[in-house]
Amino acid sequence: MTIPPVNRSLEATVRHKLDQKTKPTGSLGRLEDLALQIALIQQTLTPSVSNPHMLVFAGDHGLAAEGVSAYPPKVTYQMVQNFIAGGAAINVFCKQNGLQLLVCDVGVNGTFAENTDTFVKFKIRPGTRNMRYEPAMTRDECEAALDAGRTLVNGVAYRDCNVVGFGEMGIGNTSSASLLMHRLTGLPLAQCVGRGAGLDATGVAHKLAVLQEVATRHADLTDPLDLLSAMGGFEIAALTGGMLQAAENGMVILIDGFITTAALLVAHAMKPAILDYCIFCHQSDEAGHRHMLTYLNAQPLLDLGLRLGEGSGSALAFPIVSSAVRMLSEMASFDQAGVSQRD
Amino acid sequence: MTIPPVNRSLEATVRHKLDQKTKPTGSLGRLEDLALQIALIQQTLTPSVSNPHMLVFAGDHGLAAEGVSAYPPKVTYQMVQNFIAGGAAINVFCKQNGLQLLVCDVGVNGTFAENTDTFVKFKIRPGTRNMRYEPAMTRDECEAALDAGRTLVNGVAYRDCNVVGFGEMGIGNTSSASLLMHRLTGLPLAQCVGRGAGLDATGVAHKLAVLQEVATRHADLTDPLDLLSAMGGFEIAALTGGMLQAAENGMVILIDGFITTAALLVAHAMKPAILDYCIFCHQSDEAGHRHMLTYLNAQPLLDLGLRLGEGSGSALAFPIVSSAVRMLSEMASFDQAGVSQRD
Repeated sequence: MTIPPVNRSLEATVRHKLDQKTKPTGSLGRLEDLALQIALIQQTLTPSVSNPHMLVFAGDHGLAAEGVSAYPPKVTYQMVQNFIAGGAAINVFCKQNGLQLLVCDVGVNGTFAENTDTFVKFKIRPGTRNMRYEPAMTRDECEAALDAGRTLVNGVAYRDCNVVGFGEMGIGNTSSASLLMHRLTGLPLAQCVGRGAGLDATGVAHKLAVLQEVATRHADLTDPLDLLSAMGGFEIAALTGGMLQAAENGMVILIDGFITTAALLVAHAMKPAILDYCIFCHQSDEAGHRHMLTYLNAQPLLDLGLRLGEGSGSALAFPIVSSAVRMLSEMASFDQAGVSQRD
Repeated sequence: MTIPPVNRSLEATVRHKLDQKTKPTGSLGRLEDLALQIALIQQTLTPSVSNPHMLVFAGDHGLAAEGVSAYPPKVTYQMVQNFIAGGAAINVFCKQNGLQLLVCDVGVNGTFAENTDTFVKFKIRPGTRNMRYEPAMTRDECEAALDAGRTLVNGVAYRDCNVVGFGEMGIGNTSSASLLMHRLTGLPLAQCVGRGAGLDATGVAHKLAVLQEVATRHADLTDPLDLLSAMGGFEIAALTGGMLQAAENGMVILIDGFITTAALLVAHAMKPAILDYCIFCHQSDEAGHRHMLTYLNAQPLLDLGLRLGEGSGSALAFPIVSSAVRMLSEMASFDQAGVSQRD
């Protein structure tokens, strides 16, 4: 499938409609840019948000055995149970803001009970291999994870969802994100590595040394999917697949923090026009995220020092996205309201 | 009435509760600061948002005859009609985000039909006097406007509201805000004057010259309420009164942009501890607002290039405030969820 750039032929008409709303010209700042972007994605002067979803993919990482995270690997499984029980941050924020949460096990080391309305099993393997010694995934496994993401996105699109956020859970996944960032942006590895869930300076130095080894082992790879297979994770590959599918479907994509943006870097390397469909919801506190956003020429909506993942930054920013849409579709014009324009 | 600083004796207990939530320590950044602030205001480990309101005060300005705004004065009246009809940005955002909107005419030059659930008449005078030649309000008029704000806040507090946002409408009111800012912060007038609803460079120069005249005329005044009477507006005085009452009531106060923050500067000069109750919702694009926030040592939640007023920035930021509260009150702890803590 191709992902075409959005058709901008409606742009002047949308801008005129924005300028006729009962407010000083341009006074809603970034909201006006957002409204324009979504109007162009949806090719309408009356954009809408329909059945918005947050898809959270979870997977374990073989590299976690190397002490690259402040938290033990079993936390991935425990946190997915927490998602299922409704106790995590992403549950609270999705419930508050009217996002349907759907959690997907693509590679967690642990067994879950049956599927529910908010949890679906798509396990490919109980965790990636240890990429310090071998590729994290085979190419087939990686493509299965991409397909999992595509399948979930098509499933919600079928239920009239036109805005989809992406989140993740996976102890060790900032390591994969850092490596993908390093190889896809060309930035030095040290600029791509940060504290993750809470390493101290010694921990970060150890993580960097390990990741340098992994980068060297896979230095010959250049194809985005080869890089993703060798150094990614099941949840990251599912995110990449889901984003590609969402753009192909013409859906609005909510981009969260460091891991989610790393998955987008892979998708972007394959289909650059995917950026037209992406809203960058926040600037993460994880060190490398700022450089990722600069590389993508992206302006985040929020900058609240978040570094949680799960899609939490997107869930928090979603009401602003919705406000932009409603502003364009629901606000009165000067004519409709009988309000005078500027002198 | 006094406004005491919030009692911080619960702080360590709240921080401990935050650190026990199923997330890396500190990973929700500014949301954690917000949750702590609201917990201390409400003196509870389970803070809540109850029946939140947005109070929008409107008034006209005699100075508008001097060509200090890009829009004609009749727009104040027209926009209040737009609020009543439900077509303005603040209507759309309040409806979306579950804020009850209450609009109050404290000094609009025009007659409205009867009071409704969302509109109340408290007109003191159909516009301030032209402060280029005389004080904008008498002290009695100013105090009547303060009382209007206090009355509305007590009215909503009686209906169990514990979070209140403040907005305004008044063609010419950035002029009042700039003058109050100049006198209360000591910053040069030129740093306090901006484009308002959309002046060009020539317009800003004219506005600055007029405001310099006004500042000189009232240069002998120092008392905050004398300054407010001479150079404020009915809507600004109502905001000041409403904020003081809200803090006395122990309510959470949502601070919007340039005009609203100017009203807070007056309240702050009278009762400095009011800041403990204030959440700074956004950084306005109006030039002086950044300096106001620096003066108050305030960190805004959003920075989206907004310069609309009406309380719109607060209405947009409100879901984030609500998220902070829900995070502290609803998220599971490590113990509750059976999730392991860091190694």
